[in-house]
Amino acid sequence: MSRQSMRSNDPKKVSGELFTLTYGSLVAQLLKDYENVDDVNRQLERMGYNIGMRLIEDFLARANPGRCYDLRDTADKIQQAFKLYLGVSPSIGSWSPGGDEFSVVLETNPLAEFVELPDHCLSLRYSNILAGVIPPISHLRILAHLPRERWKSLLTGLRKDIECSSIVYSHLEVEKGMFNE
Amino acid sequence: MSRQSMRSNDPKKVSGELFTLTYGSLVAQLLKDYENVDDVNRQLERMGYNIGMRLIEDFLARANPGRCYDLRDTADKIQQAFKLYLGVSPSIGSWSPGGDEFSVVLETNPLAEFVELPDHCLSLRYSNILAGVIPPISHLRILAHLPRERWKSLLTGLRKDIECSSIVYSHLEVEKGMFNE
Repeated sequence: MSRQSMRSNDPKKVSGELFTLTYGSLVAQLLKDYENVDDVNRQLERMGYNIGMRLIEDFLARANPGRCYDLRDTADKIQQAFKLYLGVSPSIGSWSPGGDEFSVVLETNPLAEFVELPDHCLSLRYSNILAGVIPPISHLRILAHLPRERWKSLLTGLRKDIECSSIVYSHLEVEKGMFNE
Repeated sequence: MSRQSMRSNDPKKVSGELFTLTYGSLVAQLLKDYENVDDVNRQLERMGYNIGMRLIEDFLARANPGRCYDLRDTADKIQQAFKLYLGVSPSIGSWSPGGDEFSVVLETNPLAEFVELPDHCLSLRYSNILAGVIPPISHLRILAHLPRERWKSLLTGLRKDIECSSIVYSHLEVEKGMFNE
């Protein structure tokens, strides 16, 4: 049996509680490791990015998402990936007039369940791992078609805004035309 | 709606891949933090213990497991909890002649998917978090009835043996009579 068909037939799931508590252990460990909360935010995003890079293959095999032809396609794929991996479907909205920016909003955030942040962690972007996961997931088709340099400059152009108990992913700036090249 | 009924009706799930990769990030972070692999093993078990302590409430609310009257009941509950939280059902076996020791074996270990240990980590008990989760889950009813000192000595009496890509939880030694007090 091929890896693809095996995965499609075997969507393993674990409990949200176990995942949430394991993620909480990870954040707590990082808060011990780094003196600066900004460094924790950066490290969480970096981890998320690495996870997203690994999830691409699984997402392609399982969801067969097809190519993105415009940014609305990309938004749909992000929504689809959140539902598949995190079990919740974010809402997509706040489109800019030019259609080149939008927000992804989680009404409920499984990562933040049971979480109470102490006062000295108010600037912690607790769910920042999600900010890291999104770029590789959302650009999975582009990754395959863009030269490395162009893809790197694309990532630099992303701006993110994560709030503590919800995730807002806004100002996704993209170059026109890259989706249908 | 009470918390209990809300949870029973809403068994949230996340993808096994996301969980596995997040757990992998945690282990990788610990390997960066600690020079000694034994310290990583200890830290993973400690984290697992804390997670198990938080899962007890959820397990009671969702699975309504009832009281354990003997060690076979306890083994059943461990099996039930693994299925509920990790999505896999371990096999229970290798009972000692006296019925006071047994093994819990995972044929497939979701935590260890995608994992390749480098040579310098061969003594890493990669899934050691599970060794920490089991005691609070398996003794949830006993905890409520035993005085603190007796519970502490009980924990000391536990011996564990975890292998890298599977978990073997053997030699669970218990005092006779404590399950039906």
